[in-house]
Parts: sequence; structure tokens; C-alpha cells
Amino acid sequence: MLKPSYSSKLLENAVEQFATLPGIGKKSALRMALFLLKQPTENVRKFSEAFVDFKENICRCSECNMISDSELCPICSDMRRDKKTICVVESVRDVLSIENTERYNGLYFVLGGIISPMDGVGPSDLPVAQLEERVKSSDIQEVILALSTSMEGETTSFYLYKILSRYTLNITTIARGVAFGDDLEYTDELTLAKSIENRQPFKK
Amino acid sequence: MLKPSYSSKLLENAVEQFATLPGIGKKSALRMALFLLKQPTENVRKFSEAFVDFKENICRCSECNMISDSELCPICSDMRRDKKTICVVESVRDVLSIENTERYNGLYFVLGGIISPMDGVGPSDLPVAQLEERVKSSDIQEVILALSTSMEGETTSFYLYKILSRYTLNITTIARGVAFGDDLEYTDELTLAKSIENRQPFKK
Repeated sequence: MLKPSYSSKLLENAVEQFATLPGIGKKSALRMALFLLKQPTENVRKFSEAFVDFKENICRCSECNMISDSELCPICSDMRRDKKTICVVESVRDVLSIENTERYNGLYFVLGGIISPMDGVGPSDLPVAQLEERVKSSDIQEVILALSTSMEGETTSFYLYKILSRYTLNITTIARGVAFGDDLEYTDELTLAKSIENRQPFKK
Repeated sequence: MLKPSYSSKLLENAVEQFATLPGIGKKSALRMALFLLKQPTENVRKFSEAFVDFKENICRCSECNMISDSELCPICSDMRRDKKTICVVESVRDVLSIENTERYNGLYFVLGGIISPMDGVGPSDLPVAQLEERVKSSDIQEVILALSTSMEGETTSFYLYKILSRYTLNITTIARGVAFGDDLEYTDELTLAKSIENRQPFKK
């Protein structure tokens, strides 16, 4: 970058804004800004509008809190999905990850966060009542808790378990174990212990 | 990402736009879009506006073609710079790089490209007349050609040399040699040969 006395406010502003993005340092941000400079104005307009448009017009699905272009997300409104199973996840990104596996056909519930006293997030900040309402009002038979194994994740899972166990349904959590391709040697003890505890019949 | 049937047009558009940036793949683009989702709308607006503002309002310095917020760039208008030396570079980025060294006190001339028949860029596409005019009309004593050593760069340097040599001035090029920290073993032969040819008196 130029010395402050030579700098261009317009360039600096563009670079600063790019540098707010996760994983983008000043150098990449400068590269991006200079890249935009070479694009036709029309493209830069489209580029910029996409983000405001996304931020201002994206909805939250009224059923599962997933981001959606309409009031009910395409997953919740798909008749072919199994409406008796809900997978509770922390974030939109988790839904995308599970959908990528193409092995889950139920519905979701996006918490949007986990209980974390350090960050000032308590149970009342999460849409737990909404989840409870959904379990009560529809014919849900299984709730899969797919939260992280961090202390905050475990606390949240336990809290949800306590509330949901009042209803007649199966409450499960995703399997923990040694990941495909991982060496036992480098797997942490907790994971390895879980993977032995929850061993499965060998399938040929 | 979601299957096409589940996808959000708004999210996809934002991801696609981020993915047009240099060095940004679909995964990083998704991360960026979801990051924006968590920011206050006001910040997303500021973010987007910075780029259109930059693209639409940035000027080119009338003297050196450097990007600038005003008609004359801060370097050209700085009275303390040596007005008798011009360093000819390909791009805005090159000016930033040389300025970063804090060892050059002259002026610049940004070509904005180099002669490249493969990309359809001929001498007439470069602001050579503007450079010539500048050399003619002001008291320039040295022109430093700081273009790349690619075939295109060398061709352009030679072309500029032919034109500028009609005037009484020193025409120089930046020194080529083994970079600091580089092993001789891994330096290409051309660079190593140049570095021996242009050897310098040893300074204690």
C-alpha cells in the first residue's frame, strides 16, 4: 500500500472492506480491489448489488430457520422428505454439509447458535420454544442432535435433551468415531474410546 | 452447496459473485456470503458501496496514469519528489511495490499494459504518445524502464527505448540479479549470468 500521504481514499476504502471478509488479508484485498478496477462498471455494479440483495431479501424458513428465498424453505416444502425426523444443527452451513452427503432425507432445525455463557448466549437466546412447538404440533418421531462436541455444544445438546424428553420421541445424536482415512495413532483418546464403545457389527 | 432443487437464488448469486474474485473458490465464496449474513445490514451496505464508489469515482492521474482520487495524483503533485526522473511501469500494482521500498523519489508513468500480440495489444494501444509528450514538455533527465523480463516486457522496453532515444536523456532499466535470500543453485541461468555480468564493487 502507499504511504498515508499518497494513499487514495477510494482504494483504501475498497481494500479495507475486502479485508473484513474471513480469511482475507490486506494483500489479497488489494489484489481484489485492483481486479475490480479492470472489470466493466456494469460487472462491478452487479457484484456489489448481489450482496445487498442477498442480505436484505433472504428469508428465514418459518419452520426450520434455514435461509430461503421464500417463507417456507425448499427442504421443508418438499413432499418427498421424511417429515417425521428433524436434525437439529447450529448453522446454515451445517445444513449444507449434511445435504452434501445426500444420505439424509429428513427435515432440519437451525438453532443459529449454541449456549455459550462466555459469549453471553443463554438458552433464552436460542429458538428452543419454536423447536418445542414444532415437536408438539407435528408428528415428529425422531430428533437428531447434530451439534458440535465442544463444551458449548454438549451443554446445548443436554439442555435440548432435557426439554425434548418430555415428549414421546426418539432423541439421538450423530455417531462419533474415527474418521475415514484417519490413523488410529493420531486419533484423540476420547474419539477412539467412543469408537470402540459404539462398535458396529462388521458388514461384508 | 445445496442441490439445484433446494438452492437459494440469492445465496447462489452472492457466492457466484464472490467466486469471480481472483483466488476465491466456491468454498471460500460460500464462507464469505454466510459471513455477510451475520453482519448488520448497514455494514453490508457499506461493504457493497465501497466497490461501486471505488470503480466509478477513481480517476487516472493526467500525468502518470496512476489511480488517484483527484486529477493529479499525490505523487505527481508532491513538490519534494524528483521531477527529473520517470519510472515506467506496467501497472498500478508496480507503483505500489516500488513505493513500498521507500527508495525511489522520482515520478512514475503507468503504461497500463505491455505489447502482446497474442492478446491483441499493439504499441498503439499503449499511451506511448503521452509518455513522449511528457518527456518533450518537461525537464526529464532519466527514464527508468521497469517492465517485466517476459518476452512481451522486453519487446515493450525495446520499443520505448527506440522512441525515447530520440531525446537527450538517460534511459536505464532496473537491475536484474540473484534475489536476496536466493540460493545460486536454484537461480535460473539467465539471471545468474546477468548477475555476474553486472557485478558491483564490493561494499563493506
